[in-house]
Amino acid sequence: MKNTLFTLSFLMVLISCSKVKSNKEIQQTVNKTDSITIKQIFNSALNEGQSYQWLNVLSNDIGGRLSGSPEAQQAVEWGEKLMTDLDFDKVWLQPIMVPHWVRGEKEEAYFIVNNTKFNVPICALGGSISTLENGITGEVIEVKSLKEAEELGEKLRGKIVFFNRPFDDTLIRTFQAYGGCVDQRYSGAMVTGKFGALGAIVRSMTNSIDDYPHTGVMSYGDLLEEEKVPTAAISTKAANLLSEYLKENPALKFYFKQSCKTLPDAPSFNVIGEITGSEFPEKYITVGGHLDSWDLGDGAHDDGAGIVQSIEVARLLKLNGIKPKHTIRVVLFMNEENGSKGGEKYAEEAKKNNENHIAALESDSGGFTPRGFSFDANGENQKLFISWKSLLAPYGLHDMEKGGSGADIGPLKNDTISLFGYRPDSQRYFNYHHAETDTFDKVNKRELELGAASMTSLIYLLDTYLK
Amino acid sequence: MKNTLFTLSFLMVLISCSKVKSNKEIQQTVNKTDSITIKQIFNSALNEGQSYQWLNVLSNDIGGRLSGSPEAQQAVEWGEKLMTDLDFDKVWLQPIMVPHWVRGEKEEAYFIVNNTKFNVPICALGGSISTLENGITGEVIEVKSLKEAEELGEKLRGKIVFFNRPFDDTLIRTFQAYGGCVDQRYSGAMVTGKFGALGAIVRSMTNSIDDYPHTGVMSYGDLLEEEKVPTAAISTKAANLLSEYLKENPALKFYFKQSCKTLPDAPSFNVIGEITGSEFPEKYITVGGHLDSWDLGDGAHDDGAGIVQSIEVARLLKLNGIKPKHTIRVVLFMNEENGSKGGEKYAEEAKKNNENHIAALESDSGGFTPRGFSFDANGENQKLFISWKSLLAPYGLHDMEKGGSGADIGPLKNDTISLFGYRPDSQRYFNYHHAETDTFDKVNKRELELGAASMTSLIYLLDTYLK
Repeated sequence: MKNTLFTLSFLMVLISCSKVKSNKEIQQTVNKTDSITIKQIFNSALNEGQSYQWLNVLSNDIGGRLSGSPEAQQAVEWGEKLMTDLDFDKVWLQPIMVPHWVRGEKEEAYFIVNNTKFNVPICALGGSISTLENGITGEVIEVKSLKEAEELGEKLRGKIVFFNRPFDDTLIRTFQAYGGCVDQRYSGAMVTGKFGALGAIVRSMTNSIDDYPHTGVMSYGDLLEEEKVPTAAISTKAANLLSEYLKENPALKFYFKQSCKTLPDAPSFNVIGEITGSEFPEKYITVGGHLDSWDLGDGAHDDGAGIVQSIEVARLLKLNGIKPKHTIRVVLFMNEENGSKGGEKYAEEAKKNNENHIAALESDSGGFTPRGFSFDANGENQKLFISWKSLLAPYGLHDMEKGGSGADIGPLKNDTISLFGYRPDSQRYFNYHHAETDTFDKVNKRELELGAASMTSLIYLLDTYLK
Repeated sequence: MKNTLFTLSFLMVLISCSKVKSNKEIQQTVNKTDSITIKQIFNSALNEGQSYQWLNVLSNDIGGRLSGSPEAQQAVEWGEKLMTDLDFDKVWLQPIMVPHWVRGEKEEAYFIVNNTKFNVPICALGGSISTLENGITGEVIEVKSLKEAEELGEKLRGKIVFFNRPFDDTLIRTFQAYGGCVDQRYSGAMVTGKFGALGAIVRSMTNSIDDYPHTGVMSYGDLLEEEKVPTAAISTKAANLLSEYLKENPALKFYFKQSCKTLPDAPSFNVIGEITGSEFPEKYITVGGHLDSWDLGDGAHDDGAGIVQSIEVARLLKLNGIKPKHTIRVVLFMNEENGSKGGEKYAEEAKKNNENHIAALESDSGGFTPRGFSFDANGENQKLFISWKSLLAPYGLHDMEKGGSGADIGPLKNDTISLFGYRPDSQRYFNYHHAETDTFDKVNKRELELGAASMTSLIYLLDTYLK
């Protein structure tokens, strides 16, 4: 008995130690030269980076660039020229048709309590219809969820429905708070329109309590034309104020006016640049962001940052003498904000052409200080990616974990591809997201450059170790 | 032989596994309730935090508060009142004498090349003497190091010595780049004054290439009165421009004027608040930042952030029903910027009163998003601290490693105390440090609050596990 126990415990010890060993084996695949190469990539990004200057042009010379706008077309031409000038092996435009929504004149809104008028910072949501030419006025029903609105049903008739569920500030990653609220913005009109509401207003999607309305895409789903209602976002400060006044004055009148409209779909493009792989030219690794942005700011964080970082990936590889084995595609996706036509088209063409895409990386979380990557990949590769943690940690890239990737590369998903999202620090992102405050001056040069270097390092590792 | 080898290898396996076990044992001291408590601390900081509102008062109502200034005195009174209002068990002022340097009128500087005048953003360094009333003019000698200046020796006579070694941008932690340059600012005049130079100008201590001069303390060391020369910082953009023009025009004339002076030492105070320990009231854990700031900005990041976070630590403990076993001292240190008299005095009094200080934490790296803590402690405690990593990582606190703590708590160092520095992300810090851009609007509310929660969590763990 004693002997059996002894043998058993010895075996268990061996088993537990062999586990450690198998992780070690993976660690060993990480060559010392990787650590030197990554250091060189970061050095060159910080000493000779171009991304910040490029972002200055995209943000300040071109500006906000909603799909179908002249600015979006300028951005396409800028991206094509830049990648051509950078000597990519191949640069081309991939034609798509995109939704074409225009904001029209600046929106107006106020509410009146005891003859006092409170002006409300407001903006139409992307895809919304206009109000009547002189605006609309109605009583307000405040709700905290789509479900609550649905349950009110017919009581919404003739009312302006006010969706006011705030961000959960206790969520450390602010994207989770956004994810917990954004159904109000996307589906608010869909739920209330069918009950004959006059319109819908939505608390802006931000942690910050301030005076800026944040736009973003909304949908009418399957509503009939006559069921569609105008929909807008109001600033969080105004939302708090309105909510306060509604408690004492449930019959107060809210007015808003907007003249936005949807024009026929417009022709546009994904912009694609390629560095042809030296060993496996028929295997693709894609890196990209989205070239379109909302119209209120200049789209510096969303997603000018992702665009310039993706182009910088190719430049930094070249600058450091790294000749990728696989073909690296830099894709400036069009129309992420209100249709995702660019991402869909790219995947569709890849399928049609029987392309073998082994990995893709998207940067669409702002140009902030690096935190890591999330990945969506099969089990064997997951172990490999996690084994890179020690290589990336010195650069603040501690997070290497399962999670979503990005809206533009999502359509590439299949059983074999590894999809990655670049995950910078998220604390400030929703202060600027889709608002007039998303401007170049909010981007810190070093943070942007560190992001470009982080992405380049990941692409380097993927190119080196993925099969 | 075979048997011996077998026994030997078995023993080695056991030894290597026992190592794992001993780490596990430490891990087990980390109770599950700790993770719940830390979550509660973060929730309350993010939902009901006060630090941001306090910082608004300190930055915007009081403003820059250099030692000896009326604003520094206002800050003392504000801190004393705030901690009293928050029902600390004890609040008192600890008298000290502080250096009293005043800037005087706004500085002026320019250089002339081919009759074209280039204005230079400039500010006197703290502790510097003034120029002649009408300023001084001289030829410029550019150097990259104190050693280079020292070697030029007598060639410096009658010249303005221009220290122009830039930050090493490839260092991921910007404090390391600062550490690699700041000798020019602190000792530039000390080295050049003895050779009869007219004055010294120093490239601002920042990664950013912009138009803001960054002040900071300098020293004349043992120079005789007549050897002292006026010393100032110029903006990085101006430094680059001047350096460029010097190549073609080595004889160009640089002019600067400043009217700063050092007044007699002034009376001031550390502000101390105490929560008396329930089990070991005679054992102290100190948490603090520095109340003084440079005069150019409003000292929001340096170190208003550390001040309000330290006070918030005590409030968050109380709010979450945590009754510390040890006595927690919140210390608002005076005069970190140009004399460290507050830190010295606090340690001196602690020694005189035979106080048993077991730990101290300083926040003096800005109110940015959390990255971790550095510690200076003995070996056994180091293991304990590292075992907390998994508790802190969900909040972005990945760095828990040996390193410096802070200038104010440094004088407490002995063989047994554990000293900690709070280490937020450092990418933006030197854009603002000691410049007019260090203002409240550069602080993000969530980042500040996350810092306060991080510090509270560490103090909670120290109070729970340190002996």
